[in-house]
Amino acid sequence: MNQEYIKPHPWSIIEEGFNPALVRASESLFSMGNGAMGQRANFEEEYQGDTFQGSYIAGVYYPDKTRVGWWKNGYPEYFAKVLNAPNWIGIKVRIDGESLDLSKCQIENFKRELNMREGFYKRSFQATMKNGIIIEVESTRILHLELDELGIIDYQVTPINKNADITFTPYVDAAITNEDSNWDDKFWDIIEVKEDKNQGFIRTQTLKTHFDVCTFMESQLYIDGQHIDILPKTTKSLSSIELVYVVPVAQGQTVSLRKYAGYTVSLNHDPKELVAAAKNVLSKGIKIGYATLKEQQAAAWKEIWDMADITIEGDVAAQQGIRFNIFQLNQTYLGKDARLNIGPKGFTGEKYGGSTYWDTEAYCIPFYMATKNPQVARNLLKYRYDQLSKAIENAQKLGFVNGAALYPMVTMNGEECHNEWEITFEEIHRNGAIAFAIYNYERYTGDTGYMVEMGLEVLIGIARFWCQRATFSNTKKKYVILGVTGPNEYENNVNNNWYTNYMAKWCMLYTAEMIERTATIFPDNYKRIRQATNFEDNEIADWKKMAAAMFLPYSDSEDVYLQQDGFLDKELVTVANLNKEHLPINQKWSWDRILRSPYIKQADILQGFYFFEEHFTTEELERHFDFYEPFTVHESSLSPCVHSIQAAKLNRMDRAYEFYLRTSRLDLDDYNKEVEEGCHITSMAGTWMSIVEGFGGMRVRDGHLHFEPRIPKEWNSYTFKVNFRGSILTISVNKDKNSFVLESGNPLTIIVNGQSISINS
Amino acid sequence: MNQEYIKPHPWSIIEEGFNPALVRASESLFSMGNGAMGQRANFEEEYQGDTFQGSYIAGVYYPDKTRVGWWKNGYPEYFAKVLNAPNWIGIKVRIDGESLDLSKCQIENFKRELNMREGFYKRSFQATMKNGIIIEVESTRILHLELDELGIIDYQVTPINKNADITFTPYVDAAITNEDSNWDDKFWDIIEVKEDKNQGFIRTQTLKTHFDVCTFMESQLYIDGQHIDILPKTTKSLSSIELVYVVPVAQGQTVSLRKYAGYTVSLNHDPKELVAAAKNVLSKGIKIGYATLKEQQAAAWKEIWDMADITIEGDVAAQQGIRFNIFQLNQTYLGKDARLNIGPKGFTGEKYGGSTYWDTEAYCIPFYMATKNPQVARNLLKYRYDQLSKAIENAQKLGFVNGAALYPMVTMNGEECHNEWEITFEEIHRNGAIAFAIYNYERYTGDTGYMVEMGLEVLIGIARFWCQRATFSNTKKKYVILGVTGPNEYENNVNNNWYTNYMAKWCMLYTAEMIERTATIFPDNYKRIRQATNFEDNEIADWKKMAAAMFLPYSDSEDVYLQQDGFLDKELVTVANLNKEHLPINQKWSWDRILRSPYIKQADILQGFYFFEEHFTTEELERHFDFYEPFTVHESSLSPCVHSIQAAKLNRMDRAYEFYLRTSRLDLDDYNKEVEEGCHITSMAGTWMSIVEGFGGMRVRDGHLHFEPRIPKEWNSYTFKVNFRGSILTISVNKDKNSFVLESGNPLTIIVNGQSISINS
Repeated sequence: MNQEYIKPHPWSIIEEGFNPALVRASESLFSMGNGAMGQRANFEEEYQGDTFQGSYIAGVYYPDKTRVGWWKNGYPEYFAKVLNAPNWIGIKVRIDGESLDLSKCQIENFKRELNMREGFYKRSFQATMKNGIIIEVESTRILHLELDELGIIDYQVTPINKNADITFTPYVDAAITNEDSNWDDKFWDIIEVKEDKNQGFIRTQTLKTHFDVCTFMESQLYIDGQHIDILPKTTKSLSSIELVYVVPVAQGQTVSLRKYAGYTVSLNHDPKELVAAAKNVLSKGIKIGYATLKEQQAAAWKEIWDMADITIEGDVAAQQGIRFNIFQLNQTYLGKDARLNIGPKGFTGEKYGGSTYWDTEAYCIPFYMATKNPQVARNLLKYRYDQLSKAIENAQKLGFVNGAALYPMVTMNGEECHNEWEITFEEIHRNGAIAFAIYNYERYTGDTGYMVEMGLEVLIGIARFWCQRATFSNTKKKYVILGVTGPNEYENNVNNNWYTNYMAKWCMLYTAEMIERTATIFPDNYKRIRQATNFEDNEIADWKKMAAAMFLPYSDSEDVYLQQDGFLDKELVTVANLNKEHLPINQKWSWDRILRSPYIKQADILQGFYFFEEHFTTEELERHFDFYEPFTVHESSLSPCVHSIQAAKLNRMDRAYEFYLRTSRLDLDDYNKEVEEGCHITSMAGTWMSIVEGFGGMRVRDGHLHFEPRIPKEWNSYTFKVNFRGSILTISVNKDKNSFVLESGNPLTIIVNGQSISINS
Repeated sequence: MNQEYIKPHPWSIIEEGFNPALVRASESLFSMGNGAMGQRANFEEEYQGDTFQGSYIAGVYYPDKTRVGWWKNGYPEYFAKVLNAPNWIGIKVRIDGESLDLSKCQIENFKRELNMREGFYKRSFQATMKNGIIIEVESTRILHLELDELGIIDYQVTPINKNADITFTPYVDAAITNEDSNWDDKFWDIIEVKEDKNQGFIRTQTLKTHFDVCTFMESQLYIDGQHIDILPKTTKSLSSIELVYVVPVAQGQTVSLRKYAGYTVSLNHDPKELVAAAKNVLSKGIKIGYATLKEQQAAAWKEIWDMADITIEGDVAAQQGIRFNIFQLNQTYLGKDARLNIGPKGFTGEKYGGSTYWDTEAYCIPFYMATKNPQVARNLLKYRYDQLSKAIENAQKLGFVNGAALYPMVTMNGEECHNEWEITFEEIHRNGAIAFAIYNYERYTGDTGYMVEMGLEVLIGIARFWCQRATFSNTKKKYVILGVTGPNEYENNVNNNWYTNYMAKWCMLYTAEMIERTATIFPDNYKRIRQATNFEDNEIADWKKMAAAMFLPYSDSEDVYLQQDGFLDKELVTVANLNKEHLPINQKWSWDRILRSPYIKQADILQGFYFFEEHFTTEELERHFDFYEPFTVHESSLSPCVHSIQAAKLNRMDRAYEFYLRTSRLDLDDYNKEVEEGCHITSMAGTWMSIVEGFGGMRVRDGHLHFEPRIPKEWNSYTFKVNFRGSILTISVNKDKNSFVLESGNPLTIIVNGQSISINS
């Protein structure tokens, strides 16, 4: 049922043979990124077949005019869009005057490889042109991790059966649009198109947001590895610049065009200096040279893998899956820049418009905490701190007062940019995940500094929101939270979603605790925070009172917490008892039918049990897992990982493994039939959690790492590394034994299956 | 606070003095219509000021490409739009070469009058042109009720201070667009622009729906009443035709252009014969002549008023209000054509796109039953019968089977054309009103024929829908209806909306009863219906079982039915205790805040008590009125009338009068600050109900009219007429006595305040 054209390989994603129907899917799967920019794996040469062109620059977005059926008060004016940026990868190729286009000639030995170990993308094929000339093509592309404004393409052509004139026309094109633009509006203004010998530049500016971007390129030619110094003919239009090189090539000779290109952006440079900055990047890159740049790239990836790799013995599909996830996460976000965040599609597509969802806090932060230095996770937290005033404004728009903060469901710059009322206004549990991430960060890193520097202000804004959002029910004699959408988006506008109420309760108690701690331990900071937030002492009392009387729907007959007040009134037919023809319900059923069904799109109560594991017994978890899992359809990419972790905890390794496969190869095997639109980047962190927290059973309690390792019967062993407070620990789990090795840093005391173990190097 | 520029007058709507800021509002209030076509009261001459141009043709619509934020399965592909049609009212006027434009010259003695008694719209003013010429203008417009393809404009100009060359350029313009078009798409194709001496024709066709329309005109000139025979110069463009007449006019002389114009439409003619049909209309109209046409119009309106008028003594504002309502209803719908229905804005604006809502069944049918012959109401019922197969298709799209029918929330041709999930999929109570109207029709008219001919098939489809839509709750041990929106659209996706559940229960029981009656009394019809619907006997048992066990939420502590399961969990602050700055909440509050508030947009439980009055005691009504009215904000035009009727029944005449004023002068006084967009046509029938059923206390029980007359203290008397089963009865209510006079038809036994009275002529 699922696609299976990707060859199993431990370190590479490989496609063999040219199938035009798979071009869009491969463009997603073979995407490149370096945290600062990225593109879909579009062909460099012209292609008239079906393709989805996409180049993206981190942090550069457009507030597209919103599109709604019926306007609701409080909707934001715009829906932010990840912007399709000017294309710098393009190289038109002509062979004796005939344009090379894979949709128009005969293709053999077509192969793509995304080499994840060394961080390059290579494509090779043999083409028989209409004019009879047979050529071999090999194209390699790198987005340099360190010089992250620079990409390099090495495009090689070898005429096989006769001499040929090869024309390369590397170009930069700024006449690009978004597939998902709401009103077919123009997003970019073109300021200047400029050439300089082998170089070309286009300066553009986004409309409204006024991001200045210089897209640049320089090309060099080689024959059989020998640099040849010819000047191109330049063609300019209002929106593009082309450098035309004509090279006579003898049969069997290989001509190579090396294109150095990329973006300089006003986020990082004075807008007036973008061309100068681009020239600087080009001169640096060319001075280093292609071979060394490629080595540097491999070395930079080696450094990432050295820390982040997970090896799996005995299951190449699982191995390929987890590496693909880790690779894509690192292509998307490297944690260098607190202005950036992790978009659900990374640099692989446009969908979901905005960049930041609660995915970051709920799923991505654990991965970055364990595989990078703590500054990376801290930057992700700081991102929200920097947007606190916007979150307060957002809450004000909805009628909240006194510094209450509601973080947006989707955002680029702190402003809400989503507009379905049931999500925008009601899926308020996101506020809880943002608070939880602050707690989780301190729990993992031991860094108490973030709380006093920034975290507490965020917590106060969030606690105030919950305190105003909950209301007292005279019939229940409890505080209730009405009209919400929980993590399970297949229920909308429900009352007392257990997860949301529990989160609210926890947020208020945790904030109270942190205020009290800060007042005691960091009195100076406390004074500053008190002033900044106009905090008053009675607020703590209010929060505690409300938390103590928060309503948590419970069924005595079923002995479980209820997902929401009305859950048990539904027709409780399990997924197993549903005719398979009805699945996936998001494609087969009308929305109202989904809403009144018991089917759960993604972990909801079980997500809460995941966050607050210590608050519940394993027996309670088991009861809730057994009650809710049978109704869960996992039609969100964020669902299977949580179920995998919970199943592993319950020692149900077959289920855990089944959920693991579903999360780890979601895109490679295209479970949801939508990989063409891009990859599911944020849920990839959930895959990492499935292994580390699920199978490995890793937890942090009282400042120590705990493990309860388990292994799926399909695997011989697996190994992962974590950076815990500066100590690097390698964990290997075999069928019959586990090993814990300190690679560097201070000795650690860890707890394995309840037993304390000291780990020295 | 409300606008008060309309002069009080018993029979006319009058504006005096020119205020450009009121142009859009007046364009709505002075709208003309004759059931077949209509327009907003746009100026004939050019006007560069702010204006909302609108001409509409009954039954001619366009399936505009829909616009949604996020697509939901089951949404219809289009949102039907009342189409802005080619403009035939335009007459450019030049005075010695200077264009007459009210935004560019000095205006005195400006006056508009909508003469409701005789059915014409007149506008007069004096203009001082920049060139110094002073002119008097008087323009009269009629949309002929009988020749309903014909409109006539008599446009008179008198130069006051010198001789002048007057140029009249009557034109037809097909280059029109909808203000509310979703994607700025073009809606019309222009087929042919054609002239013939004093005549001009434009043939157009709507895209997609392919309605053919010929917009036509012919002009005649008079000086001081003397016909002058001059041929115009004709100018044509791709989308317009102009006839240019130049007339030298002496100071003090009056030149008059009479423009005969209108539409012929493929709904009523062979599309190929539209120009011929137009010529036929023109020749008829011109043969009859303006004076006689105007007399005919007055006579036709007299006939309508003779039956439909309500007189109120002692309160000219109330008198003007009710006549405006009755006039607009008759301008909108005359009941001649079962393909037509009553759009919420009639011919006064574009808003609410589609034509038919449950407004027709719940509010309009009683008015048309009592003031027209029964065929008119029957046509409104037949409209739904004719669309039964589409309602069944609509239900199928949402997963229902076996002939279950869900009528659309908004429709032009039986297909759903609304797309907000909470309305489209969930506001299913509309099905109940459609069934109720069938019951109500038979109750009022005594015509049992409709049921066997058409009604029962509709009822079966509706009963099947409810039977599939309700589900069994294991916790409540009752049938529940989850995920609905009741008449109070300020709650969405609620469970067990009392009104909806009660409607569902009643529909199933009533359908069962009607099937049993039909089987006994009309066995042949029953056989046919059984075959047509594949009806099976066990269905009746299912319905009865489900109706008997239908859950109706009730609060023991409050001793009232609950609007929905969660109502009492809300913060029950009454409207009186809400800071006035928060009103209207639909403008001041975000949607989520509205949804979790207790505020009721329009009568919900009280609407159910209105439909099923006999099922509840007056004491029960009082309890529910006292409980729900304090939470009702009446932010729907359909709300105050129901509250007025209920308040009158409870003998709270001050409240009843207050609600009456709110409904009757909603548009004239612009309570909701939106009259610019058009008038609230369907709620105007509610105003009529407020007097007849509210103050007059008219009901039909056991085949007899009942009355319990009351009178607001502000009035001296009021009088209305009803056509009850062919007998015309005039009811006059004075402060101290009531009179009931049989105008024609068979003697009647009526029940007044519980006492039986025989009425003979």
